[in-house]
Amino acid sequence: MRKIFVALWLSGTVACASAQLPFPWNRVVNDSLYSETLGAWRDYSVYLPRTFEVDTLRQYPVLYLLHGLNGTNTAWFEILNAQDVLDQLTASAEAKEMVVVSPNAGGKIGDGNINGYLNMPGWQYEDFFFNEFVPYIEGKYRIIPDKQHRAIAGLSMGGGGATSYAQRHADMFCAAYAMSALMDLPTDYENASGDKDDSPLSLLFSSVKANGCAKYVEEADEKTLDDLRSVQWFVDCGDDDFLLDCNISFFQAMRNARIPCQFRVRDGGHTSEYWHSALYTCLPFVSRCFGN
Amino acid sequence: MRKIFVALWLSGTVACASAQLPFPWNRVVNDSLYSETLGAWRDYSVYLPRTFEVDTLRQYPVLYLLHGLNGTNTAWFEILNAQDVLDQLTASAEAKEMVVVSPNAGGKIGDGNINGYLNMPGWQYEDFFFNEFVPYIEGKYRIIPDKQHRAIAGLSMGGGGATSYAQRHADMFCAAYAMSALMDLPTDYENASGDKDDSPLSLLFSSVKANGCAKYVEEADEKTLDDLRSVQWFVDCGDDDFLLDCNISFFQAMRNARIPCQFRVRDGGHTSEYWHSALYTCLPFVSRCFGN
Amino acid sequence: MRKIFVALWLSGTVACASAQLPFPWNRVVNDSLYSETLGAWRDYSVYLPRTFEVDTLRQYPVLYLLHGLNGTNTAWFEILNAQDVLDQLTASAEAKEMVVVSPNAGGKIGDGNINGYLNMPGWQYEDFFFNEFVPYIEGKYRIIPDKQHRAIAGLSMGGGGATSYAQRHADMFCAAYAMSALMDLPTDYENASGDKDDSPLSLLFSSVKANGCAKYVEEADEKTLDDLRSVQWFVDCGDDDFLLDCNISFFQAMRNARIPCQFRVRDGGHTSEYWHSALYTCLPFVSRCFGN
Amino acid sequence: MRKIFVALWLSGTVACASAQLPFPWNRVVNDSLYSETLGAWRDYSVYLPRTFEVDTLRQYPVLYLLHGLNGTNTAWFEILNAQDVLDQLTASAEAKEMVVVSPNAGGKIGDGNINGYLNMPGWQYEDFFFNEFVPYIEGKYRIIPDKQHRAIAGLSMGGGGATSYAQRHADMFCAAYAMSALMDLPTDYENASGDKDDSPLSLLFSSVKANGCAKYVEEADEKTLDDLRSVQWFVDCGDDDFLLDCNISFFQAMRNARIPCQFRVRDGGHTSEYWHSALYTCLPFVSRCFGN
Repeated sequence: MRKIFVALWLSGTVACASAQLPFPWNRVVNDSLYSETLGAWRDYSVYLPRTFEVDTLRQYPVLYLLHGLNGTNTAWFEILNAQDVLDQLTASAEAKEMVVVSPNAGGKIGDGNINGYLNMPGWQYEDFFFNEFVPYIEGKYRIIPDKQHRAIAGLSMGGGGATSYAQRHADMFCAAYAMSALMDLPTDYENASGDKDDSPLSLLFSSVKANGCAKYVEEADEKTLDDLRSVQWFVDCGDDDFLLDCNISFFQAMRNARIPCQFRVRDGGHTSEYWHSALYTCLPFVSRCFGN
Repeated sequence: MRKIFVALWLSGTVACASAQLPFPWNRVVNDSLYSETLGAWRDYSVYLPRTFEVDTLRQYPVLYLLHGLNGTNTAWFEILNAQDVLDQLTASAEAKEMVVVSPNAGGKIGDGNINGYLNMPGWQYEDFFFNEFVPYIEGKYRIIPDKQHRAIAGLSMGGGGATSYAQRHADMFCAAYAMSALMDLPTDYENASGDKDDSPLSLLFSSVKANGCAKYVEEADEKTLDDLRSVQWFVDCGDDDFLLDCNISFFQAMRNARIPCQFRVRDGGHTSEYWHSALYTCLPFVSRCFGN
Repeated sequence: MRKIFVALWLSGTVACASAQLPFPWNRVVNDSLYSETLGAWRDYSVYLPRTFEVDTLRQYPVLYLLHGLNGTNTAWFEILNAQDVLDQLTASAEAKEMVVVSPNAGGKIGDGNINGYLNMPGWQYEDFFFNEFVPYIEGKYRIIPDKQHRAIAGLSMGGGGATSYAQRHADMFCAAYAMSALMDLPTDYENASGDKDDSPLSLLFSSVKANGCAKYVEEADEKTLDDLRSVQWFVDCGDDDFLLDCNISFFQAMRNARIPCQFRVRDGGHTSEYWHSALYTCLPFVSRCFGN
Repeated sequence: MRKIFVALWLSGTVACASAQLPFPWNRVVNDSLYSETLGAWRDYSVYLPRTFEVDTLRQYPVLYLLHGLNGTNTAWFEILNAQDVLDQLTASAEAKEMVVVSPNAGGKIGDGNINGYLNMPGWQYEDFFFNEFVPYIEGKYRIIPDKQHRAIAGLSMGGGGATSYAQRHADMFCAAYAMSALMDLPTDYENASGDKDDSPLSLLFSSVKANGCAKYVEEADEKTLDDLRSVQWFVDCGDDDFLLDCNISFFQAMRNARIPCQFRVRDGGHTSEYWHSALYTCLPFVSRCFGN
């Protein structure tokens, strides 16, 4: 017994040392599905909590966690170490056990497939997400398929995507958490792609500009405002972030519309470390928002 | 100008977006030196702060940051992302600009070179560290070569190493920060290597047992205790860590000997995330301890 | 309207400025009840959340928050500003709306009524607490009267009291949070009262010694251990606290008995500031433990 | 010995229990001086660090800590418990030992003496502060009387005062920390005093409006901007604070002028708890800014 324990320790699976994290393990699975809407296979990564494979009748809440412009579905787990924070916060119950899903909304620059979360000519990703991806995931992974158990979060382009999704589909999410979010296109970026108007980057920037998150709130009618109040909102952006101003504008629009919205400005820029540390606030927040 | 900025952003060098982190960049260099003591080439990694290559006359304080049993010199930077935290905390001045050095004290299991920081038959690593490594590094990287500008920290086996080094060489370090430290061999581990007595693991465990950090304090004479009081100590260990008890014993020995020592028990186990987050306490602490 | 708002601001009711804290207000009420058990009137303070007087059919969870040796029922509110932290954490939903009750377990030194939370000759306070006080409070203030909505916490003598109560009445509490707790009588304090053996202080110290919290766990049978596992435990003690060792012993006893228990050692001593800041951990913890 | 220790504990001087806080004690002194400028006696409170009365040749850095509209010189100590945070952070060296001074810039409403930190007809407080108060204090309390050892901070009206003082007297302060600062008069407050134009409140509001902190930066010439860069700035305001927008405007003006400025938005409103907790950031910040 001691030998096994030492062997595990030595082999680098350090988490086993924790009294609170015995077998079974949580894990991240990479998989893909074929999208009729997009006419392509799309990758995704999914974090399954440690009880998932033993409590085989249990259903879980879900967090859709969106990557940024340069990321793919694996970024949150392979670069930003989301699993480490999930492990720790669920062990101490600061976060509920949940399934966390990252879809691939584009891909590495140079592949010609920078596309983003919004619908644009030739890339109906938002349609794919709601019509194909969500039903597929929630059928496959024992997720409680209702608003009170579904949250969305993301960083940079994914933070803008998470906010836009929760705005236009307020009936779908109980909570939205935006990190360093591309809430709108900064003035400097208009036509900054340097490419032809139908390049992937130009189309992406146009879609972001057309879907400004503050403008959406400012132009909303009373019915829409009421719908927005059914979601719990959190905006988190660094004081050195070049996107801070559009996050401020969004928060001010929300406050002026009397839609409760948490707002934090912490130390930092548009960096991996900011997003990693944001999980310490994000995961407890969505856990509190989830129904029981 | 805008195109360059967008291009940088798109290319994934996200830190460039921070107003507080313009050129020049900090960076991590991997290099090696030949040790006469060990009769072998030894790798090391060194983090150079962002001003290092422009303020070419400036000298810096240094932090020796020691890896754990399964790590090598690259672990703190490639797995634990120490650079991200260094970048953020130096940008906001919560940490001073410093050189951070990780030597390789062993290597991956299976290579037959699990050896650790302490002297043992056939592996005089402590001699190498003080007689060869420190002088080499401090000559090469414009480090202020005195006690008031030299600190040491480490995780697990490296936390025990950092503590032992600062105990036996109190004239060398102004501060020592131990994370989840292997302060002594847990009772269960005696003879647990399952190997012959002269296996690398058996030798390592014997050296740890022979150098118990609490025992060192309990058996110290008045002169030694005075020397220990010239170092500033910090012990940080998770409440789920299987090494917590030996950290408690060390802290209690220090307190009983009236040697000031900070002690923290945070949430977590013997995990990467614990060590990554410990840097938020460690780096400001050693920065406060550095002289001016 | 503006005049009213300015007037409110100027008059010092600064909380009114918060968009998240409109009328109605939360408030603290001081009251008393007659105890047949003790043959005396006993004071208590109760914090009522802001919805209490408008949602007149709503029932709330309850936290019993115990003062220390020199305190009375008002200490948590008038000295330690518990209301400020409750206001902030409930506004952001990090803590659930709850009723918080502080009974008076003694009184100021010199009044001859230092008596504590435990039964002792002439002072059956534990009997009073469970037979008279809890039923009275939970009938009067619309509290959900079951284990899943009842937690207990306290500082110093009150931290020991909270732990002992939850040990002997595990069916009553879903959570127990001990701050700088008098878990046992430090060796130095035996006979330290300097008074006759039947002085209030001597009786108090004897009762603490007779009810050591670590010993209770070490001597518990399997049935009792199972009962203890039905409570969620949290121990929080400063690294400069003279009671740290008995808190460590309690945590180690719990861990050895495989009873999950959170443990934190933060910076600080046996001070008001430690207890005030402990509420930032305590209130979210008990909120997570409360049933729905 | 034991009796004395118990007696101290019992008597409520709980800080004595900390191994890191032996005699001598730090303390807060209330005193007053006569102002020729104002033609009146003015009260002040001063916190002296624990070594002050034993290291009788030692000189200290100083923090001027300004109260808000409804406060007086005692507010930071008697209501906001600044001493508790100072004690803890200096014990762990997260803050340097410093003298902290609160002058009385007005007084309770109803006394007809709401006057503020800025010069206005009949109340040349800024002149008093720099010509009389600072020289008096720094002569009396062994303060190092130079820019590198002098910082300023304040809450609400005092946060605006601290910012304005550091703007117009950049040669005097190495650091300025603004909490929930009245950086400008909110639009709603113009003429909101409801009083005659020469009432104390009208005069105060006029002085705040005339000294808008963002405007000062926007209108500054190059020489002034360079001076402002010699101060280290920190802005800290809650997401529920009715003054958040003027703090945002100030930060944006600073960033646009390329003057480094830290900015944080934490959870909370215009409340005592926000200011108390701000000290945990403020005191380490000014300590890092102080010269050696």
